[in-house]
Amino acid sequence: MGYPAPSKRETALLRALGTRQGRRKSSCCRCEGVRAVRELLEFFPENVLFCVGTEKGLGQISFDPQKLRELPEHLFNDISGTVSPQGIIAVAEVPVAPEDVAGDFIFALDGIGDPGNFGTIARSCRAAGVRELWYSAGTVDPWSDKAVRSGMGAQFGLSLRGFASLDELLSTAAEKGYGTFFYADPHGGESCFTAPGLYDRSVVIIGGEPSGSHVERAQSINIPMPGNYESINAAQAATVLIFEYVRRLGQKQ
Amino acid sequence: MGYPAPSKRETALLRALGTRQGRRKSSCCRCEGVRAVRELLEFFPENVLFCVGTEKGLGQISFDPQKLRELPEHLFNDISGTVSPQGIIAVAEVPVAPEDVAGDFIFALDGIGDPGNFGTIARSCRAAGVRELWYSAGTVDPWSDKAVRSGMGAQFGLSLRGFASLDELLSTAAEKGYGTFFYADPHGGESCFTAPGLYDRSVVIIGGEPSGSHVERAQSINIPMPGNYESINAAQAATVLIFEYVRRLGQKQ
Repeated sequence: MGYPAPSKRETALLRALGTRQGRRKSSCCRCEGVRAVRELLEFFPENVLFCVGTEKGLGQISFDPQKLRELPEHLFNDISGTVSPQGIIAVAEVPVAPEDVAGDFIFALDGIGDPGNFGTIARSCRAAGVRELWYSAGTVDPWSDKAVRSGMGAQFGLSLRGFASLDELLSTAAEKGYGTFFYADPHGGESCFTAPGLYDRSVVIIGGEPSGSHVERAQSINIPMPGNYESINAAQAATVLIFEYVRRLGQKQ
Repeated sequence: MGYPAPSKRETALLRALGTRQGRRKSSCCRCEGVRAVRELLEFFPENVLFCVGTEKGLGQISFDPQKLRELPEHLFNDISGTVSPQGIIAVAEVPVAPEDVAGDFIFALDGIGDPGNFGTIARSCRAAGVRELWYSAGTVDPWSDKAVRSGMGAQFGLSLRGFASLDELLSTAAEKGYGTFFYADPHGGESCFTAPGLYDRSVVIIGGEPSGSHVERAQSINIPMPGNYESINAAQAATVLIFEYVRRLGQKQ
């Protein structure tokens, strides 16, 4: 009890962040839910402008009291983007990816339409120490409510770079010295567990149209599925490829 | 147009399947959504008792016309378990796991509370050719609406076996000749990428209390996370362990 309500300006920002346009204009995003906000406050407190919550929600996090705003439940639930509000939303500045591209390889998403998948892939990247997560048109906004919630704030620890097309993404990668391209193909290609050079200054692409430009410019790799049931989703496939990198990294040491 | 409405008995069954008790009593489950129903009809048509849908929903699947039931949209949506109904639900018999336990290892879930995670793990198992997916108390009902929807019907292709406790699960496994136990420990243990015998007549456990019985009876293994951000979810961790099995399988050949 006893924190001020958000100002009119803060309330307007909160509402605007529900749309892609609003996020772009303000370079901010919303992060909702106890666990996601806690992760954000633990790892990236400097990005957080303020937290809005119910008395109960605010009681479940710890943060600079100057940056806490309180709302009664019915007003909070009116702002909330979830079906079962947990009474806490953080408003945070979206980080700007550093100019330098870092790491052994770039993980690239093409046409990943599900924000939950994007968030899950961001978490896997962050856990694996893969910093470059690039995406092309047709992929969801990485900073949408649902993507941030699923990502548990992992997005803040990555260099996310968006491109108008996969061609543009690949050309930029090549300029930066990441010149070999691989794409995950459900229907063929070398096994991801044995393909040489898979994470060696390369781009590994998930998703995309079967007839897209990656098919011409990239080598196909395949996640073997002895169950003959090729139906793992994009987030699962991405996780397999990301942790195959971790495995190979361990072998080098 | 032109299929009969579900009978009173069918409607009562449909409704009852929304609860765990109803599913247990009838040994049936509901599978909702175009993609999930299509997968079910493709791989396990013999389990499907009937499909209920709107005119539009029924138009998106192909199945024995004798087993199709039609409802106007408002009545269908009243039955639907989803926020955005797609106009199609299949009612299917839950398969009985064969007595014989099969395969190189048993994947075991302890205390996995999220039905979406269960479904995702079921899909990974099925894709990888891992047939035995066991679970102990505290794990969600594998046949709940959401678990089946997330699993896209993968559950039907697995030997799912539930136990009152993890101890009981492990004892049964040992009796069946699966006598070494491993559990995924976020805080230590040997790397899952190098641990010997990990899939050799063993049980690999995900989830559970940090102080549970598995800690005493099983060896700990760890998914290396060089990002120092130990926050992948249970479904991602399971997928890494399941596909590490696939990788080792390829090496044997």
